Amino acid sequence: MSDSVCVVGSVAFDTIETPDGRADDVLGGASTYFSVAASFFAPVNLVGIVGTDFPDEERRFLSQCGINLEGLVEAEGRTFRWSGRYHENMNVRDTLDTQLNVFEHFAPELPESYRSSELVFLGNIQPALQSNVLSQLEKPKCVGADTMNYWIEQSPDELRRLISRVDLLSINDSEVFQLSGESNIVRAARKILDMGPRHLIVKRGEYGALYFSSGEIFAVPAFPLEDVVDPTGAGDSFAGGVFGSLAETGTVDSRSLRRAIVYGSVVASFTVEHFGLNRLKALTREEIEERFGQFMSLTDFHS
Amino acid sequence: MSDSVCVVGSVAFDTIETPDGRADDVLGGASTYFSVAASFFAPVNLVGIVGTDFPDEERRFLSQCGINLEGLVEAEGRTFRWSGRYHENMNVRDTLDTQLNVFEHFAPELPESYRSSELVFLGNIQPALQSNVLSQLEKPKCVGADTMNYWIEQSPDELRRLISRVDLLSINDSEVFQLSGESNIVRAARKILDMGPRHLIVKRGEYGALYFSSGEIFAVPAFPLEDVVDPTGAGDSFAGGVFGSLAETGTVDSRSLRRAIVYGSVVASFTVEHFGLNRLKALTREEIEERFGQFMSLTDFHS
Repeated sequence: MSDSVCVVGSVAFDTIETPDGRADDVLGGASTYFSVAASFFAPVNLVGIVGTDFPDEERRFLSQCGINLEGLVEAEGRTFRWSGRYHENMNVRDTLDTQLNVFEHFAPELPESYRSSELVFLGNIQPALQSNVLSQLEKPKCVGADTMNYWIEQSPDELRRLISRVDLLSINDSEVFQLSGESNIVRAARKILDMGPRHLIVKRGEYGALYFSSGEIFAVPAFPLEDVVDPTGAGDSFAGGVFGSLAETGTVDSRSLRRAIVYGSVVASFTVEHFGLNRLKALTREEIEERFGQFMSLTDFHS
Repeated sequence: MSDSVCVVGSVAFDTIETPDGRADDVLGGASTYFSVAASFFAPVNLVGIVGTDFPDEERRFLSQCGINLEGLVEAEGRTFRWSGRYHENMNVRDTLDTQLNVFEHFAPELPESYRSSELVFLGNIQPALQSNVLSQLEKPKCVGADTMNYWIEQSPDELRRLISRVDLLSINDSEVFQLSGESNIVRAARKILDMGPRHLIVKRGEYGALYFSSGEIFAVPAFPLEDVVDPTGAGDSFAGGVFGSLAETGTVDSRSLRRAIVYGSVVASFTVEHFGLNRLKALTREEIEERFGQFMSLTDFHS
């Protein structure tokens, strides 16, 4: 049986504009994308907060994915709302509106049944809250974390304390440069590994991802897609695929991490094919395996 | 015995400034970098033009690499000179000075002994001149070409005529977007393949390269280097490695192209480790094979 994955982070409703279309108030948020992605591989324990406006329908959808919602707290008020607009170049987006609502007072508490989760992912929230979750866990095999430029600037000390305690950091390349103060990716990665984590995953958007550990580098391209409809949630579903695959394998070593990073890339490549979670809702494990095979032929020069 | 590679393009003296150092009047130019890179794999026939200031010493160096200089014409005047400055982010550079000198009237003529070259690379010069060289060849197995934004803007019709006649185009991602008018790389690649070439290599600098043919995509990362000293000539030595490897193999198919693109990436990764041609001057085939092996472990998730 698989290990289980616990994820802490935002649950939101997103309004997304792209040059070719828009989606209004669709289910989103880091822990939602992560959970749905991870659920293809392993049982998921979600920790998050929603308002009284959160529909039963979305709750049922998440449950049907095999996601445990015991840790999804409902608070008086509205669910977190985000709105953004992508440019013709889909790598660039403007945030049009952010309404934190109930998410503003999110103080994650792990239900008793979550505390033995083997794989844990601390989505991008205030580093002190991430550390607090870490302290509620029994003996996880691997704790991963995400963060963002805001926390690197605003809470550098709390963030450094968190980073010294996690096993894996999964962040964007711009954050890697900012956090390390280095402009070369190899030197930047080494500096971050020196801060504590044994594993660093650098997300590079359409250019794929790099993985660094002491003495090892692994590179995977992004899957070349003809139509990127909506990049929202790509990084979170990437991380969900990585941690789901690690939980399914039950071990965290070089071999399982490399495969997990490819599975993460596979799921992320599906996410961006439609608005919001639409593509993941229709996705099957068979399609995931098929694209995993396409990643092999995409990168193979050994045979 | 290997096939031979013929290359047409600039021979220059470069003055290069980087945040960490500078090099004055060092041997450079597209066909020089290409030739030296290709010479690790196969015999090379170089076509270019130099002034009366071109030192015997450089001529001897190129000859000792196994490069045939019968097509290196000496004309009255000075050799092409280029000067540029790289920013802290080595992907950005400013051209400080360009003196075309004898290169301004370059009208490449292939010596009789070159016309049977099996592999041919038309470096970035005026498209009409590239087409003219193409017409001087007997029956090459594979003709590749490079170009730049200037020709895409200034000579679009001549460029399209050239592109319809070559087998392989090797250009930067920004040129792929410009030439195709598409902002998505897969759609852009398909549009360029529709213009004639069977093979398209997209150079993405520190992100590596993509290869497209009808129904096939191959991706290779750049080798992660801790110190990039001077990016000058990376793209040209990449192409040299690709064509050298193809010539050595003697066949141009999916398998040989994928391996050739990795060899190109290997040689380019050495080029940027020192100023100008300094690293390639000291490079051995054993080091190339060792780094080829490192590319395998960099990208492997199959084992």
